[in-house]
Amino acid sequence: MKAVYYEGNKEFKVGACHPVAPGPGDVRLDVAYCGVCGTDIHIAHGAMDQRVPSPMVIGHEMSGTVAELGEGVVDFAVGDKVVVRPLDNRGEKAADRGYSHICQDLKFIGIDAPGAFQSSWTVPAFTVHKVPAEVDLKLAALVEPLAVACHDVRLGKVVSDELAFVLGGGPIGMLVALVARHAGARVVLSEISSYRLEFARKLGLEAFSPMETDLAAWAREQSGGSGADIVFEVSGAKPAAASMTDLLAIRGRIVVVAIYPQPVEINLFHFFWKELQMCGARVYEPEDYTKAIELIASGELPLEEMISQVEPLEKLPDVFNSLENNPESMKVLMDCRG
Amino acid sequence: MKAVYYEGNKEFKVGACHPVAPGPGDVRLDVAYCGVCGTDIHIAHGAMDQRVPSPMVIGHEMSGTVAELGEGVVDFAVGDKVVVRPLDNRGEKAADRGYSHICQDLKFIGIDAPGAFQSSWTVPAFTVHKVPAEVDLKLAALVEPLAVACHDVRLGKVVSDELAFVLGGGPIGMLVALVARHAGARVVLSEISSYRLEFARKLGLEAFSPMETDLAAWAREQSGGSGADIVFEVSGAKPAAASMTDLLAIRGRIVVVAIYPQPVEINLFHFFWKELQMCGARVYEPEDYTKAIELIASGELPLEEMISQVEPLEKLPDVFNSLENNPESMKVLMDCRG
Ligand SMILES: [Zn+2]
Ligand SMILES: [Zn+2]
Repeated sequence: MKAVYYEGNKEFKVGACHPVAPGPGDVRLDVAYCGVCGTDIHIAHGAMDQRVPSPMVIGHEMSGTVAELGEGVVDFAVGDKVVVRPLDNRGEKAADRGYSHICQDLKFIGIDAPGAFQSSWTVPAFTVHKVPAEVDLKLAALVEPLAVACHDVRLGKVVSDELAFVLGGGPIGMLVALVARHAGARVVLSEISSYRLEFARKLGLEAFSPMETDLAAWAREQSGGSGADIVFEVSGAKPAAASMTDLLAIRGRIVVVAIYPQPVEINLFHFFWKELQMCGARVYEPEDYTKAIELIASGELPLEEMISQVEPLEKLPDVFNSLENNPESMKVLMDCRG
Repeated sequence: MKAVYYEGNKEFKVGACHPVAPGPGDVRLDVAYCGVCGTDIHIAHGAMDQRVPSPMVIGHEMSGTVAELGEGVVDFAVGDKVVVRPLDNRGEKAADRGYSHICQDLKFIGIDAPGAFQSSWTVPAFTVHKVPAEVDLKLAALVEPLAVACHDVRLGKVVSDELAFVLGGGPIGMLVALVARHAGARVVLSEISSYRLEFARKLGLEAFSPMETDLAAWAREQSGGSGADIVFEVSGAKPAAASMTDLLAIRGRIVVVAIYPQPVEINLFHFFWKELQMCGARVYEPEDYTKAIELIASGELPLEEMISQVEPLEKLPDVFNSLENNPESMKVLMDCRG
């Protein structure tokens, strides 16, 4: 029973896990695997010390099994394979108008409350989704980022035969590309890392560097002069924000997935001229989890490829050091069993 | 029979109108009134000399009556009161995917082809809409800008009881405010000119200067903490673009009506965090003309107030000089009868 504690100020401590007995409505889980997310790396580099309590266990991309049920929990049985949708919306108010998943007082479990980089984790039962018994728990640890991609593609209203660009080929960009392709789109990945371009091509995606290919001209050429139907902006890079409107056809759509810490320049003339549409997309709703679990269970996406490494939990501090700005890693899973 | 010709290089010449016999499918109109639009002012100041042929008559916000029918035109009779939807989409291609009103090779009649600042004007019959006989032709000259507002409000999907902001209180901003209010919204105008603020209040609108009121705080306070449902950005001002995302509730919407010649900074973090939506809106579709004509015929909007002056056509060059950056003028109509 292990745990890794974030101590603040970029420091971690590997130690013993202290299981928390589940209160009414809670479930205690045995964590199997927990993926390392961009947000975790951000925290590890001290960028979120204002927000993250310490010492505290972080981590939220987990898979595991039910170990113990709190009072009143009837939807689960000990041993069930599960994943957690780490959104605590118990602070939701009328002013949030039903958008529970992004309510003003949302707590993100694993950032604002203890997370899954430990062998035993206790969470509210309403955050828990069952996964079919035949699903590999390593793949199940991809449900959380895959649900992000499902949410992005759903909000983007992708339909068959559309030409879609994904700007940025990190783990979320790759998953968005795979889900959009599964929805029937022709998907093109734009990325500057040659490793990631090659990786995308191995997944069967078309992939180009915007430094080498005039993507706007290419999009028009491939679409009989129209341009692309949709762009997913996942890179967070200024040049991507500046040029994304160029890629699009009349009434084309943009989904903003990336987190931009600063305002960036956008071509609003293109919005007017082509009547473009843009929406932001953040985390997921329960139906996105359902969809992600279905997709994983179906075996239709090459998700094994997305797992770059599986490491024992105690290596987490080393993993954080090795991942900073490393384009050659997709998803690293920590083995939390113990 | 008069006409005013744009000669290029900011010069106009008042002269005789040379009626053009209507070819097959065309209609010749007796122009009654033609409103002066921001685009006309732009042309008058030489800003569009690259695009506008010269010498040529400009103007597109007209009302009039049918004078002569070309071969094959059966939907109109001589004497019918009419307005023109000045969009020539005969260059439309498959790549435009059915969005005729903003097709890539759209010709705007009155900019790319001769316009309505003349007593007699010949246009394709497919651009002509009848107005009911009882409608005053001065008010009918407002159909074109009112159709812009109807398009903006329709694309913004405004519904009853929403809190809507209109940023910028020029003629289009005022019309958007009136149409959004007619659709059931509570409408707030943001404007820096005290004349226009007062004008809006006389129309029964709530109106504030963003220099004096913290509109984001006000919006939250008035909406139980949510923020506004929709923002129409009509000002084209950088500070408006920078702050519009602040005003909005979770899943709030922005309609970009203004023309931004340069890219501007936008807070994409707000798009992500609140899952905001934004769309551009340009000109109008036939149904927006139908709606604008209905609204004018209904008498439900205080549109007489929008007409600041009616001047004889030969005064057009003087009117252009007096209108530059003049917040105290709403819509000036030129009387083109002759
Ligand atoms: Zn994550
Ligand atoms: Zn106009």
